Amino acid sequence: MNKPEKMSGVLSPVVTPFNADLKADGGRLVRQCRWLLSQNCGLAIFGTNSEANSLSADEKIDLLDTLVDAGLDTARMMPGTGACAIPDAVSMTSHAVKRGCAGVLMLPPFYYKGVSDEGLFRYYSEVIQQVGDSNLMVYLYHFPQVSQVPISLSLIERLLKEYPDTVAGIKDSSGDWNNMEAMLKQFPGFAMFPGNETVLLKSMQSGGAGCISATANINPGAIADLAANWQAVDAQAKQDEMNDLRLMMQEFPMIPALKAAIAHYSGDLEWRHVRPPLVELTAEQNSALLAELDKRGFKMPGLAEAQAA
Amino acid sequence: MNKPEKMSGVLSPVVTPFNADLKADGGRLVRQCRWLLSQNCGLAIFGTNSEANSLSADEKIDLLDTLVDAGLDTARMMPGTGACAIPDAVSMTSHAVKRGCAGVLMLPPFYYKGVSDEGLFRYYSEVIQQVGDSNLMVYLYHFPQVSQVPISLSLIERLLKEYPDTVAGIKDSSGDWNNMEAMLKQFPGFAMFPGNETVLLKSMQSGGAGCISATANINPGAIADLAANWQAVDAQAKQDEMNDLRLMMQEFPMIPALKAAIAHYSGDLEWRHVRPPLVELTAEQNSALLAELDKRGFKMPGLAEAQAA
Repeated sequence: MNKPEKMSGVLSPVVTPFNADLKADGGRLVRQCRWLLSQNCGLAIFGTNSEANSLSADEKIDLLDTLVDAGLDTARMMPGTGACAIPDAVSMTSHAVKRGCAGVLMLPPFYYKGVSDEGLFRYYSEVIQQVGDSNLMVYLYHFPQVSQVPISLSLIERLLKEYPDTVAGIKDSSGDWNNMEAMLKQFPGFAMFPGNETVLLKSMQSGGAGCISATANINPGAIADLAANWQAVDAQAKQDEMNDLRLMMQEFPMIPALKAAIAHYSGDLEWRHVRPPLVELTAEQNSALLAELDKRGFKMPGLAEAQAA
Repeated sequence: MNKPEKMSGVLSPVVTPFNADLKADGGRLVRQCRWLLSQNCGLAIFGTNSEANSLSADEKIDLLDTLVDAGLDTARMMPGTGACAIPDAVSMTSHAVKRGCAGVLMLPPFYYKGVSDEGLFRYYSEVIQQVGDSNLMVYLYHFPQVSQVPISLSLIERLLKEYPDTVAGIKDSSGDWNNMEAMLKQFPGFAMFPGNETVLLKSMQSGGAGCISATANINPGAIADLAANWQAVDAQAKQDEMNDLRLMMQEFPMIPALKAAIAHYSGDLEWRHVRPPLVELTAEQNSALLAELDKRGFKMPGLAEAQAA
């Protein structure tokens, strides 16, 4: 196995399907991932939108095996493997590398707040050293609004200096363009993925790697198309159109809304289940969401067929 | 096995000993717990101060087995079993009940922020129902500054109504006396443990159950004595003395400072290890801490002997 290339393009933090008893459903996840790949969208499985932290480490390892065993392309897989506990992060990361994933997306440990860069450096160092595999490619995950533990520029600088062949990039979900721009300027070659497609064009123009966005669960084709064709004359018009959808989605609780949309367009209402502490959309929210989507002539081409396969 | 009584008195969120390679050391934990019990202090193992979220669920299950197999009193054990993922919370909680623990201390799932009481109710319900053991006694854990997910009065009310024989009490680490007082008034019989001994006397006078406090790791005897003798004439003087120690400790990063004190008074410097993202005290902080303790004539009676046993 060769060392993976740096990842680029658009990846979806794939929502995780649960049955009525809240068990994860590997079969439906495989079919969803296959559909996303058919839309030129990579698989950032086990992200925030995947309810990854509502899954045990063992569940995530089993689901990854199910995806890889189904023959899905590991060159497009960036599973989330960060965890509060180093042993969990090591076991998930080791497994992802062994199964050939091109990268892993690593949250910092997020229970303690106000921790030092020194402590975060030691956390990432421990995981990298305990995994001990030269094929490991780590993408950091900066999402201060949710994790409450930011990844600072000085931490990135130190990690890049110590692990230049392993620390490959970052997902920045802060929404703070100044931070994204600072990383692009300060760390050439560092793969910067905004966590939101509303800055995709601007990011590509500034040397960004693509994006990893919640909405790529339902609008993967259009987002991937803009990432691939950001130099086309109609790029701004495409950006504007996808912004409209994104901003509408943000009016709803994002994860339940993504699942409600997938449930509707796949025709499989089981998709609506979320694990606590999340709750599914109310009937009123669901109707309002579907009306907004319908108003836009929104479609998820091929989804129903893919899920019925 | 009979249904456990409600717990009361003082419990220590026992710090977890790690070796230089960051592996948890069950032998030293057993000896530390034995010493705490000898000081009339119960064992709230796997709490915030135990770096519990830096341990995997399997590590916690193994450590609990080590403690129970060593013959420590399960009637004084309240392991932390809350987790972001329901399967982890269920496996740890089930195991604790099976091994005879008198209660479990359950954090809410703490990754997602701004979640609804409905979602938190479903989380606790799922765990209680999946564990399905009438001997389960749940103590909720309210620590909004760290978990960022508060336990509201209306959530407690709903849980008490649905699970009156299971939801037994709460640890309130908010530091907000108004919240503690509101619970004592609104929920008679609900075991309320402040997370800080500076309100111990006030709490006992208002019907509180005791306390579960970081500092009980190093000052268990005095805190337990006040909880037992809060009606004595010298209670306020004892409260003032322990407040002085507590406030001094709060000037340092608490968990590394607790471990530094134990390392010093036990004579076993291995105690200083913490898992990332925490970092041990600097040499300067360590000297300053020991000077402050020395100035107060501080002692940990019997600790060195207990750890050498």
